[in-house]
Amino acid sequence: MTVTPTALRTGTAPQVLARCRALVRPALTRAVERLHPWVGEMAAYSFGWCETGGAPATHPGGKGIRQALAVLGAEAAGAPGQAGVEAAVAVELVHTFSLLHDDIMDGDATRRRRPTVWKAYGTGPAVLAGDALYALAVETLAATPAGPDALRLLSSALGDLVSGQADDLLFAARPWAGPERVRLEEYRTMAERKTGALLGCAAALGALFGGAPAETVGALERAGRHLGLAFQVVDDVLGIWGDPSVTGKPAHGDLRERKKTFPVLAALDAPGPEAGRLAAFLESAGTVDEAGARRAAALIDEAGGRTAALAEAGDHIASVERALADVPLAATAANELRVLLDHLVDRDV
Amino acid sequence: MTVTPTALRTGTAPQVLARCRALVRPALTRAVERLHPWVGEMAAYSFGWCETGGAPATHPGGKGIRQALAVLGAEAAGAPGQAGVEAAVAVELVHTFSLLHDDIMDGDATRRRRPTVWKAYGTGPAVLAGDALYALAVETLAATPAGPDALRLLSSALGDLVSGQADDLLFAARPWAGPERVRLEEYRTMAERKTGALLGCAAALGALFGGAPAETVGALERAGRHLGLAFQVVDDVLGIWGDPSVTGKPAHGDLRERKKTFPVLAALDAPGPEAGRLAAFLESAGTVDEAGARRAAALIDEAGGRTAALAEAGDHIASVERALADVPLAATAANELRVLLDHLVDRDV
Repeated sequence: MTVTPTALRTGTAPQVLARCRALVRPALTRAVERLHPWVGEMAAYSFGWCETGGAPATHPGGKGIRQALAVLGAEAAGAPGQAGVEAAVAVELVHTFSLLHDDIMDGDATRRRRPTVWKAYGTGPAVLAGDALYALAVETLAATPAGPDALRLLSSALGDLVSGQADDLLFAARPWAGPERVRLEEYRTMAERKTGALLGCAAALGALFGGAPAETVGALERAGRHLGLAFQVVDDVLGIWGDPSVTGKPAHGDLRERKKTFPVLAALDAPGPEAGRLAAFLESAGTVDEAGARRAAALIDEAGGRTAALAEAGDHIASVERALADVPLAATAANELRVLLDHLVDRDV
Repeated sequence: MTVTPTALRTGTAPQVLARCRALVRPALTRAVERLHPWVGEMAAYSFGWCETGGAPATHPGGKGIRQALAVLGAEAAGAPGQAGVEAAVAVELVHTFSLLHDDIMDGDATRRRRPTVWKAYGTGPAVLAGDALYALAVETLAATPAGPDALRLLSSALGDLVSGQADDLLFAARPWAGPERVRLEEYRTMAERKTGALLGCAAALGALFGGAPAETVGALERAGRHLGLAFQVVDDVLGIWGDPSVTGKPAHGDLRERKKTFPVLAALDAPGPEAGRLAAFLESAGTVDEAGARRAAALIDEAGGRTAALAEAGDHIASVERALADVPLAATAANELRVLLDHLVDRDV
């Protein structure tokens, strides 16, 4: 066996993701096979393993960020990636559960260019399939020796996930201006819970299963949470200024849906005249047409909303780097975690 | 302190239920207070602690059978009831989660003479509140020393709950006659999962937290499962022949909704001519009027469906008795478990 320098052994992001998916897939398949067959089909559809009715898949599944974080967390602790597989299965099941239920709550009809589960199978069945995936995640962890610590990490992430989703739903009803408006600090709390908590849990669980000391588990959890925040803020920027041919989402989509995203909230907090004009526009009734959305995007930009969002993402990226540097980690895995970080936040913004 | 003979210390069912509710309430309140405030209000509404908007409660909550089983399970193991409180909190949270989600799936608009949570707060919020209660249940158990075993019991009950609900939803689409019809054995599996699993889990968890040996935990789980089956079959009888002024449900409600309940399935399996006439009636399109429902109820009775259901309930009651007699249990708690059993199945059937 030839000794390869670390830098060469480090995979690219698509390679890392594909390697982790391949490692986790058999265990994830076995877990899903334990489900009621009807529920199992909805789960397989969500994972992109099949189309409705069990027909062969014609659409790709998710990238599998969370399962990759769990595998890399175990490897970062010096264990083989296999040690993180049960953790990876659990977080992937929880992630899919949350997508299924969030799509119902948000009324989203498509995901990854296919009908969402509630659109394809009905609301009731989608509620049930989410519940089943969640139960399976708990069952998966309860069956491992790392049980109690692992379940504490998972249940705390789950609590955060639900609270973050509750905050997000409630933000929609809040005014755009005045003392009741949504503050950036509230947004950060929401995004850390809704997006950061499970990413942090994935990396931390992987490390725990890899036998890492508590300090390393904690550092990887922090890294994952900041990664989630960076990712969410970048996603917000793309939701306004992203190229539809790259994002697969309509131009100015988040503005048309009047979502209270980071760039918008930052712009509304800015001192200049643009904040007031933006608030007046967002408060106006009626649907947002393309010209209106373009004007709002320009106002947000002029008020510094895009710059503030990119600076925010940069802060969280730096926090991820610091968390990874805080503790001793296996070099290749730590590098691959950095590669994933770049891949997730360095999209065309 | 005077020594009171066991028989005198045994409470009546309403006394036992009230005592257990009072014992569990502080811990349940503390758990619910950890929820996001909005989600917490939906939880409090479900428990009958308040009306919508947090107004003082004007409707009673549930009886709290599951929490009582957990407390009595601990006491049956010779521990003080307090030892079963965390188990009681967890099963009560899971039960409420399942009511919230099942009401969405079944499209039920009222429960305990009030609008269901999805009717009062919206479908999305009700999905979220259910998820939050479930996460809180897992968190509650993960924080206890009995963690891993307890979570294995809970997650296996959860898996059963979801599978039972899936079976029940799928039964609705199956034909009334022919090889594809629902068999009694399938019904038993469904009802054991949907109703029995959590009752069994409640009693078993209580015993586990009370320090009972595995054999006792297993016996109490079996007792709870058979209790659930007996309860469900009695509920089915009341759903057809129950007095609306007592049940609070419309006369012949289950027939009007064409539910595939035990007495109906037993009648359809009977050899006489009534089975065919009943199947033809149930297969006919259109709404079921009062005269039609009365005719169907008579056919089911003539085909022996009511008798078969009552015999089935009797079998499960005997199985509960056998399970309780199988292992050494503290006398008062064992008696109170029997009192509860009578209370649950000895309704006017």
